[in-house]
Amino acid sequence: MKIVTMITDFGTKDPYVGMMKGSINSINPEIKCVDITHEIECGDIKKAAFFLLETYQYFPEGTVNLVVVDPTVGSERKAIIVEYSGQFFVGPDNGVFTPFEGRYYDIERKGESARTFDGRDVFAPVAAELASGKKPEEMGVRFESPVRMELYDPEIKDDVIEGSIIHIDRFGNLISNIKEENINSRKILVEVGGQVIKGLNYSYCEGREGEPLVLINGGFGTLEVGVYKDSAAELLNVKEGEKIRLRRSNE
Amino acid sequence: MKIVTMITDFGTKDPYVGMMKGSINSINPEIKCVDITHEIECGDIKKAAFFLLETYQYFPEGTVNLVVVDPTVGSERKAIIVEYSGQFFVGPDNGVFTPFEGRYYDIERKGESARTFDGRDVFAPVAAELASGKKPEEMGVRFESPVRMELYDPEIKDDVIEGSIIHIDRFGNLISNIKEENINSRKILVEVGGQVIKGLNYSYCEGREGEPLVLINGGFGTLEVGVYKDSAAELLNVKEGEKIRLRRSNE
Amino acid sequence: MKIVTMITDFGTKDPYVGMMKGSINSINPEIKCVDITHEIECGDIKKAAFFLLETYQYFPEGTVNLVVVDPTVGSERKAIIVEYSGQFFVGPDNGVFTPFEGRYYDIERKGESARTFDGRDVFAPVAAELASGKKPEEMGVRFESPVRMELYDPEIKDDVIEGSIIHIDRFGNLISNIKEENINSRKILVEVGGQVIKGLNYSYCEGREGEPLVLINGGFGTLEVGVYKDSAAELLNVKEGEKIRLRRSNE
Repeated sequence: MKIVTMITDFGTKDPYVGMMKGSINSINPEIKCVDITHEIECGDIKKAAFFLLETYQYFPEGTVNLVVVDPTVGSERKAIIVEYSGQFFVGPDNGVFTPFEGRYYDIERKGESARTFDGRDVFAPVAAELASGKKPEEMGVRFESPVRMELYDPEIKDDVIEGSIIHIDRFGNLISNIKEENINSRKILVEVGGQVIKGLNYSYCEGREGEPLVLINGGFGTLEVGVYKDSAAELLNVKEGEKIRLRRSNE
Repeated sequence: MKIVTMITDFGTKDPYVGMMKGSINSINPEIKCVDITHEIECGDIKKAAFFLLETYQYFPEGTVNLVVVDPTVGSERKAIIVEYSGQFFVGPDNGVFTPFEGRYYDIERKGESARTFDGRDVFAPVAAELASGKKPEEMGVRFESPVRMELYDPEIKDDVIEGSIIHIDRFGNLISNIKEENINSRKILVEVGGQVIKGLNYSYCEGREGEPLVLINGGFGTLEVGVYKDSAAELLNVKEGEKIRLRRSNE
Repeated sequence: MKIVTMITDFGTKDPYVGMMKGSINSINPEIKCVDITHEIECGDIKKAAFFLLETYQYFPEGTVNLVVVDPTVGSERKAIIVEYSGQFFVGPDNGVFTPFEGRYYDIERKGESARTFDGRDVFAPVAAELASGKKPEEMGVRFESPVRMELYDPEIKDDVIEGSIIHIDRFGNLISNIKEENINSRKILVEVGGQVIKGLNYSYCEGREGEPLVLINGGFGTLEVGVYKDSAAELLNVKEGEKIRLRRSNE
C-alpha cells in the first residue's frame, strides 16, 4: 500500500481535490491519499513548505508528497519531482521544496491539451506513477538550481533571538520559527504583542487560565506562545508575521 | 479495491459522513471512500449535479458515486441507482442525476425502522453492495421517467451567449456555465458585474495584478473570470447566480 | 483491512491530523483512517463523547476509535485504552469514554522525549498497534475507576421531560438529549427558545416552510427541532446548551 500525501490551497468546498484523487486512483486504485491540509491560504508557498517539512518525516519510506500551491500556474515554471530522504516530492518549481537538497527532475509534459488543471492532469498522475514504482528518471530529466526561497529562519544576535509568528493554529497558539535547539535555557524572557512573558514551560497546565505562557509546540517543535484553555492570538491580539523576541533572563 | 465517491451537504463538523463511512465499511472494509465535497450549500441539488458531472469522469470504471443532497428526505421521493457509462450513481430521485441518460432502478426498501437516516441506512449500504459486486437489479426495480431538473445551460442567440455564474471557487474565481466549445474565437467581450473584459487568455499570469481576465477554468472546463493573485468575486462584487454575457469583439 | 476512526478538536487547517495519520501508517500502511470529525470545539470533551457514542456502533468489530480532545494534555492524566463491545477506544483519561463500561488499560509510556505531541507520539501508535492485532495488555496495565463525567441526560419528572440542546448541526437543527425511548406519545408539546411546538412529526416534509417542527433525528436518534428548508437555530435564535421541555398534550 503506497501513500500520496497532499498539501494544497484548494480548500474542501470545491471538487478540485476530489478530481486529483480520481486521477490518482484511475492510475492505481490501491494508492492511499492522505490529506495533510487543503486550507493553505491561497498562494502561500512559505506556509506550504513549512507544513511539508514538519510532516513528511512522520510518513514511511517511499511516500510521495504532493504539494500544489501554485500561484503562477500557467507560467513557464517547471513541474518537478524531488527525490530526497527515501521519499518523493511532486509539485511546481516555485521554491516550495527549498528545504530539500535532493535530486531534482523536470517533468516532461506530453502535448498540452487545451483544457488542463495541472494538479489533476500533471502532478497527480506523476505522483500516482511514482507511488506505483515508476522511477523519476522515466518521467523527468535531472536539472540543477531549482527555484529557492527564503525560509523561516530567526535572526540570532548575541543573546537575543528575533523570530516571527509563522503560524497561528486552531487553538490560537502562536507558533514561531524559533527552534527548540536555538534555546539553551529555561530562564528566558519572550516579547510578543507588546507583552513580556517569563520562563519556558513544559505544558499548558502549568499556566494560569487567561495568562500567556511559552512552551515548545510538540507538533512543530518550535517555540510557541499559548494560553491554557484560551486563544493566545485573541488574547494578545497577535497576527501571523508579527515579531517575537527571546532573550535570556537572570532569574 | 473499489471506490465510493461522496458528495453531500452534511458538512464536516457533524458525524453524519462518518456514520455513512461506518455503514459502508461494515459491509465491506476494503472499500475506499473518496470525499468530493460535503460543503454543498444545504439542499443545493443543482450544484451537486454540476460537481458530480465534472468529477465522475476522472474516476475508474466501476466507481460508485454517492450523492446525498436531499432536501425532501422523508417524502415519497424514490431512492435510486443509476447505471451509466460503466459507473454507478446512488442517491435520491430529485433530479440530481439529470445529466445521466442511463438505466434507472428504484431501490426496494425493507421494512422501515422508526429511526432512519437515509444516507447511512439506505444509500450507503446500497453503494457498498454495488462496489462489492452486487448487481443493481438485485436491489432495485427498473423504472422510467426519473425526476429531471433544468441544468445550467447558457442561452445562445446570434452572436451573444447569455450565461450565469454557477459557482465561485475558493480563489474567488467566477465559474460560468459557458462551455469551452461554445466559444469559437479568442476575440471576445465579456460582461459581468458591470464590467467589460476583453479577450480570452490562456492563464492567470497573462493578467495584471488587480485586473480581471477571462480564461477557461481547467477544473470545470467552462469560461471563468479570475484575477491574478486576487479574488474576482470580491473585486467585481459578483455573487453566484449573476448573469455573464459574451459576445464577439472586432479587435 | 483494519479501521481507525478519529475524533479530535485539531481542525483541518493545521497539519496535526496529517501527522497522526503518518504516525499510524508508518506502523502499518494498511490501516484505513476514517475521519469522524476534527471540528469539535476546542476542549469540548462532552461533545466528543456524544459523537463517539453515536458513531462507533456503525463500524465493524475490531475498529479502533481514537479520540483526542485533550484540554489537560501535559498534566498527570493517564493515556488509556478501553476494550468494549468488540472494539477499542484510545485517548486521554478525561471522561470522554464515560459511556463505556469496558476493560480499561493505562498505557505505559517509554521514556518521554523532550518534544512530544501525544496525539501523534502516544495515541496514534497505540491505535495502530491495536488495529494491527497487538493486545491491550501488551501495551498497558489494567486499572479501575477511570475518570467519569456527567453525561447528557435529560431530567424526567412526572409528565415533563427537561432536556437541553446538546448540538446544532450544519442544517441548523436543534439536537436535544431527549431520546426516542423517553417519548411515549406523538401528542406532545415542546417548548424551546420561547416557542411552543405541537406534535411529533415523522419528517421535515410534514412541516410548513418557515415553521419549526419536532421529530426524531435519524442520525442521533434523539428529539430534534428543525425547520423545513431552513435553520431552526437561526429562526428560533437558540444556542447550544439551552433548555428544551417536553410534556404530554391532550390533543
